[in-house]
Formats: sequence, structure tokens, C-alpha cells
Amino acid sequence: MNTNNSSDRVTQHLRALAAGAPPGTRLPSVRELMRELRVSPVTVQQALERLRREGVLEARPGQGTFVAEIPAPAAAPADMAWQSIALGPGRAVADGLAALTALAPSRAHLLNIGYLPEDLQATALLGTAAARALRRPGVWGRMPLEGLAELRAWFAEATGGAYAAHEVTICPGTQPANAAAFRALAAAGDAVLVESPTYSGAIAAAQMAGLRVIPVPTDAEGVRPDLLEEAFRRSGARLFYCQPNCANPTGTVLSAARRPEVLDVVVRAGAFLIEDDWAHEFYFDGPQPPLLASAARDGHVVYVRSLTKCASPGLRIGAVCARGAALERLRMARLVDDFFVPGIMQETALQLVTAPAWPRHLRALRTSLRERRDLLAQAVRSRLGTESLPNVPPGGLHLWVQLPRGVSDLEVVRAAARRDVLVSAGRHWFPAEPPGTYLRLSFAAVEADWVGEAVQVLAEAIAASGA
Amino acid sequence: MNTNNSSDRVTQHLRALAAGAPPGTRLPSVRELMRELRVSPVTVQQALERLRREGVLEARPGQGTFVAEIPAPAAAPADMAWQSIALGPGRAVADGLAALTALAPSRAHLLNIGYLPEDLQATALLGTAAARALRRPGVWGRMPLEGLAELRAWFAEATGGAYAAHEVTICPGTQPANAAAFRALAAAGDAVLVESPTYSGAIAAAQMAGLRVIPVPTDAEGVRPDLLEEAFRRSGARLFYCQPNCANPTGTVLSAARRPEVLDVVVRAGAFLIEDDWAHEFYFDGPQPPLLASAARDGHVVYVRSLTKCASPGLRIGAVCARGAALERLRMARLVDDFFVPGIMQETALQLVTAPAWPRHLRALRTSLRERRDLLAQAVRSRLGTESLPNVPPGGLHLWVQLPRGVSDLEVVRAAARRDVLVSAGRHWFPAEPPGTYLRLSFAAVEADWVGEAVQVLAEAIAASGA
Repeated sequence: MNTNNSSDRVTQHLRALAAGAPPGTRLPSVRELMRELRVSPVTVQQALERLRREGVLEARPGQGTFVAEIPAPAAAPADMAWQSIALGPGRAVADGLAALTALAPSRAHLLNIGYLPEDLQATALLGTAAARALRRPGVWGRMPLEGLAELRAWFAEATGGAYAAHEVTICPGTQPANAAAFRALAAAGDAVLVESPTYSGAIAAAQMAGLRVIPVPTDAEGVRPDLLEEAFRRSGARLFYCQPNCANPTGTVLSAARRPEVLDVVVRAGAFLIEDDWAHEFYFDGPQPPLLASAARDGHVVYVRSLTKCASPGLRIGAVCARGAALERLRMARLVDDFFVPGIMQETALQLVTAPAWPRHLRALRTSLRERRDLLAQAVRSRLGTESLPNVPPGGLHLWVQLPRGVSDLEVVRAAARRDVLVSAGRHWFPAEPPGTYLRLSFAAVEADWVGEAVQVLAEAIAASGA
Repeated sequence: MNTNNSSDRVTQHLRALAAGAPPGTRLPSVRELMRELRVSPVTVQQALERLRREGVLEARPGQGTFVAEIPAPAAAPADMAWQSIALGPGRAVADGLAALTALAPSRAHLLNIGYLPEDLQATALLGTAAARALRRPGVWGRMPLEGLAELRAWFAEATGGAYAAHEVTICPGTQPANAAAFRALAAAGDAVLVESPTYSGAIAAAQMAGLRVIPVPTDAEGVRPDLLEEAFRRSGARLFYCQPNCANPTGTVLSAARRPEVLDVVVRAGAFLIEDDWAHEFYFDGPQPPLLASAARDGHVVYVRSLTKCASPGLRIGAVCARGAALERLRMARLVDDFFVPGIMQETALQLVTAPAWPRHLRALRTSLRERRDLLAQAVRSRLGTESLPNVPPGGLHLWVQLPRGVSDLEVVRAAARRDVLVSAGRHWFPAEPPGTYLRLSFAAVEADWVGEAVQVLAEAIAASGA
């Protein structure tokens, strides 16, 4: 649950307390907990009740609440050593993904989040949309595999006509869309090309599909077409995963000059390009360049987009667009993975994006994000030096900060975390050896009253690591 | 959307009409449609509006509604022949899955559905549960990968103590749970053993994971332990997918005598057994035998269960339970596939199963299903002969009907469908050559006033195919 909610905070506190104490330990009284945690008796009771239901705590009438006894195992402890043989070597999946998706403690300064913080989420709009969705007949029934027709039509229109509604398949977010694309458009052992660095969730999904993930270097104009061509030639890859606008993590926009070159390389290679348009609603410095998909001939571009990032993490709705045999392969992969996306999620998404307040939400969101980007960029340049941030992205959620030679990104991340400043180590966005050391800083949750102090913590951690 | 809803029925009708007519064809007037389809003007207008929004129809003010012109392609028609080379050979995935998940026309007699029909679904309870869920704080926020703690505790308790809450991972239904298990516990090219016949969704998920699916014959007592042992030895498999209770499609229950034998074979093979307990809530002749998981030592059983089948198709919530390294592998696979299951779905499920009315729903459900099973079994035995149905299952949703030699299951399915009786061809449940020909008949939607007539249609189709 939401970690900023006081009941959840208390639950977390008590769970940690229970985990650290032997079974049978008596908990402080409700009154003591109220005082210590500065919350209402209702909040304490809710948290206690929840942990009692989970079996973490047990109530003994008249005596209080105790850390529950762990039931004794049936006989000898389980011997699971055989699993090592059965499971064999693990798939090498970047460990950055777990770090990326871990829930953070609520007090920290969050410069590591990949979603909107609560104050920017469309929570109220979602509540209204879901309530309307619940009144739609058949919302708990079966859905067509490809998704609700009206929602598909909306996504098709949102591509500016690059795709028709029948080429759209609704997915529960971008991650399942990318995972399905990697499985459907390539086979285990095949190569897939990716920009380097690129989104760690995509790297992990490609690795999990058994693909060889081959990095193609990028510069300030995006992926280098000459190296992309060379990579296709050497690897025999038929698939290139790409974020042409405000790439995660660098914020790079593929330049206008390179766009036709990149498409030409892809067409000559007889390959697919997955265009992950993750930041479409966050392009706040002027209009976003046209989609690659809109210039693609003959079904070479598979286009992925989601509503999760611009609404709330819990609205896991996105779409993947493709044509030709690729569309059929993608649908089969999605069918086997999931059957269909629940009607209540699809109807809620549809009600949300067709609500009159939705464009206002997006405008306000862009304004806030631009302000926060400027605050963070200014703090970074003034405290870490302008050379640390050569590129201020025109949108997205992140700054990509270059560290001085000899500084370890992991050391900086750990040192800053000890002082409640959470940032992400750049190495998680590279499928192979990084050419330098970087931090990814999210500006989504930035506030004026702590950003300077937080970046100062980073500056000190960098100085300590380099020393 | 719900196909029994009149607006959807009209939409389907108009969609079919538009698909069969050249662009620019004028549709009948609203008044004519009202008369022809016996619905209100509002219903017709809703359907027209929906199809206009999808771009299927277009309104011309003052003239009426027309089949939309298909926008002309930008220049020459797209040449997507290159995709054949890029995509290479398709994965051989049983084509039964698409048949299984297709939405049926509403007028037909549905003996082919894998879900509860509308009258047995928990629609009203779900509405209440979802409304309560919407009031929970943080319901649109991020969720822990492994799922909501309280829901995991509920699933753990529902295994009768075979698993603890920390061994439970919430999934959006059984299909994603099985798909993740196949990907996590085996690698592409590995063998997986399955009962033959078995659930076509599981066969497809295993095939999509690149596994070699090896059938192990079953008889009236379930899978044969001697052949299971031989299959493990020959194939080197480390994974056996199994439905010990009311297996889909046969309804077979693994006998008490064989249960320890099967577990012993699995342990000696150093293998995992996936126990898909899909019919847990539908075991209506006496109590269901204890879970295999409850007798399994040392983490050999991975247990899968869902709420989708016993609530409504749109409540896509289930759980996969495992321990040891297998649990970690499963979590990584789920993380890469999906990140997490939306909070609104998990909270709705939790509210549903903890509602006082939930046990009443399940009791009423079992009573109805037992009545419908008896109606269908009686009709089958009296009109197709007792030898066609050697085994009446103590639960589940299906009867497994043996056809006479020389009769084609596909011919019978097609002939019956022409007379609005929908049944499933048995071949879709076999990963290799079937030992005979079968039909799977679902009794979930059976009604007393048409079941005899529908089975008579089957009898005539069988007679025509065998002649």
C-alpha cells in the first residue's frame, strides 16, 4: 500500500519491530504507540488489526499484543538443496530492476523514483473514472483479447493516425507490452539491439526472453546510425528497442537529421524497431517531434505507450501497436500471457482519458514537472558543476548526471541513502560495460525546500568517494 | 464488453453488417433498427455512437449513418513481406487457445465456455467490493511486487497452511501464474511433463516458453505413476504440470492411492510439480481431497490458484505459492512481466473474499453447478449412450465425452455450431496425438429447457459425421 499513508507507515514500523523481536515479545501499548508515532488511536488499531490478520502479531485478551509465535515446521527443516540442480543456471537478469521497483521509505528525499509522486498523480480523477466504470454493464465479464474497442480507438487516435484501431492491442502497462514484443518478435538466443544506456526494465525483459542484448552507443543526438548499421550486420539482429524522445535515462531526443537515417538502417536490415514512447505526455519544452511510427513504411515500427506514468502507478494500462504478421505474433504472446486485461481497468482508463479534466491534469503535470526539472538542474549545475549535466532534457522525469572519473556510482548511492537521499546508480541502465559512471536523478518529486540540501549531500558523497 | 447486454448485441449486429457491406453503404434508419432488433431508440443510438467513435460508421448530417470509407493508404499499399524473414518460424502453439477464448454470440447454447455464465457470476458482490476498494487509501499507488500482504495471507490460509503468506505471490489470474512458472522453472528447449489430456491454456503457455511438452497418459485414477517415472527418466524433465482435482478437461481426480506415488516420483526425479488447483471452489460432491502441496516435502510443489473462475472473468486475481530458490525465480519472472498487479484489483479481491456474503455465493454456486452437471450428464447418457460418458466428475465445469470411432470432433463441433450449439473439440487438450476423439462440454451455462434439445443436436451431428 501507499507508504505515505499514516496507517501504512505505522504498519511498517510495527512490522519491522516484530521482525526484530523474538516471538512472544509484548508490544508497547496503544497509548504508548500513539505518543511515539504521533498518530491517532484509530490508526494504531488499524495497523495492529492488519498485522494480526497477517499472523505477524497476536492479541492475547487482557494482556495486550504480542509478536506471534512462528508455527514449528512439521518435522525436520525442509531440504531444498535439490532445487539448485532442477533450476540450473539462472538467467542473467540485470539486478537493477529490483532496485528500481523497491518501495522507498516515506521520509527520504526521493530522487530515484520512476513514477509520479503522489501530489502529481491523477488520484481524484481516477476515483471518479473508476466509479463511472463500475456502472458500465459487463465490466466484470470477458473482454476481447485485443482490448476494449473504444480504448483501442483512443490509443490509435493518440498516435496521430500512425495506427488504426484494429492495429492496437491493450496491455497492462509498458512492461508487459515490451516483454510480449521481445518474446513475440524474436526467439531465445537471438540478438536484440538497444540504445546504450537504455531503460533497465526493457533490458531485463529482453534478458528474461533469452535474448542477447547488444548495446549501440548514443550521443547527444541519440543513437548513432553508423554503429546501429554495423550492429545489425554483425549480430544478425532483427529487432531494435528504442526511445527516440527523452530516452530513459539520458533524456536524449533523437535528432531530426537522424530520424530518417535510423529508419533507413532498420528497413535495410529487414528489422523491427520498438518505439517506446514512454514520455509522450511529459514533453514540456515545445511540441514532441512526430513519432517514428508515423514515418515508418511497411510495418517496421512497433509502437508502445502507456497511461501509467502520466496518471498513477496503479493504472496499469498501455497499448502496443503493430501491423502485419507482427501484430498476430504479438496478440498470440499476449493471449498466452494474460488472456485479457480486466474490464474495470480498461473502462477506468477510458473514462479517465475522455474526462474533460484530463487535458487540464496533463497541462498542470507538465508545468509542475518543468518547474521541478529546472530546480534540480540548477541545483546540480551549481553544486556538482556544469560539466556533470551536459544535457538538460526537454521532458521526461530524469536528469542524467555524469560523475568524475574514479568515483563509484554505487558508493555515492549508498552514502547518500544513509543520509536519506535516494538516487539510482547509472550502471543499471547499461546492458554491458558503462563508458563512464553516472547517476540517474528523478526530478518528479523535487521540492524547492530540500532540493539544494539533497544535492549537497550528493556533492559530499561524490567528494568522499573520489578522495 | 458483455455480449448479453442489448447495446452490445446491437453493436455486434451493426459491426457485422458494416463488415459485410461496401464503404459508403447507408445503414437502416434508427426506427427500422429498433423494429428489427426489438430494442429501444437509446440502445440503437448508443451502438451507433460507439461504432462512429471507432471509425466503423460515419454520420452524414441530414442523410443518415453510413459504413465508413476506409482511409486510403498514404501511397502504395504497405509491403510487409520482409516480416516473414524477420519473424522466422512461428512457435508451434496449440490453436485451441484462440477458440477457447473467442467471445461467443449471445443466442447460442453455450456448452463451450470455460468461465461462469453471467447468472452465476458474483457481479453484485464485486460491485460492492470494488466500491469499498476505491475508498482505501493508496489504491492507485505502487504495490509490492509480491502483492498486498493481507491478500497473500488470505491465499496462504486458503491452502490450509501448506504455505505461509511470505511464500505467496499475487498474479493477475492463473494463466500468468502458469506462464511465469514455465518460464521461471525451466529454460527454452527443456522438457515439461503434462497429464494427457490437460488444460490447453497451460499447453500453450509451455509451448510459448519454448518448452517441449511431453504428454503422460492418464486413466480414471489420474496420471499413471509408472509412465510419469519413465517420462522423467527419458526426457530429463524437471517439471510436471498437474491438475490433481477435477482435471480440466476430463474431471478426473487423482486417486488417494496414487497421490503419494506421484509425489515420490517427483521427488526422486528432483523435479517440481505445478499443482493447478483451478476447481477448488467447484468440488461439489463431498470435500476436495487435501492438496498435494500439503504432503510435499522440501518445496517440490508449486501451487497455483485463482479467484477468476469462481467470481467473474474480469476479476483477474490469483496466486502462485512456492518456496526456496523457486520462489525467487518466480518473483523475478513476474517482476519482469508485469511489475505488480494493480492495487484496485487486489483490494477488490480482498474485499470480496472477506465479505460475509462470499461463502454464501460459493455455496449457491456449487448447488447450481451440481444441478447443471446432473442435467447435462443425464442428457448425454440418455441421448449419446452411457459409454460416451464413463466418468461423471465430482466438480469442475466440464464433462468429457468420448465419441465413437470414425467420428471427427471438428466435424461435430462445426455441425453443432451451425445449429447454435457450441461445444469444444477434444483435440485442443492434447499436446500430441489424441488416443481417441472427444468433446468437452461445459455444464456451467446449462438450462433445463434447452439442454435436451442441444444434446440431441450433438447426437445428430455425431450420427452425420460417423455415417
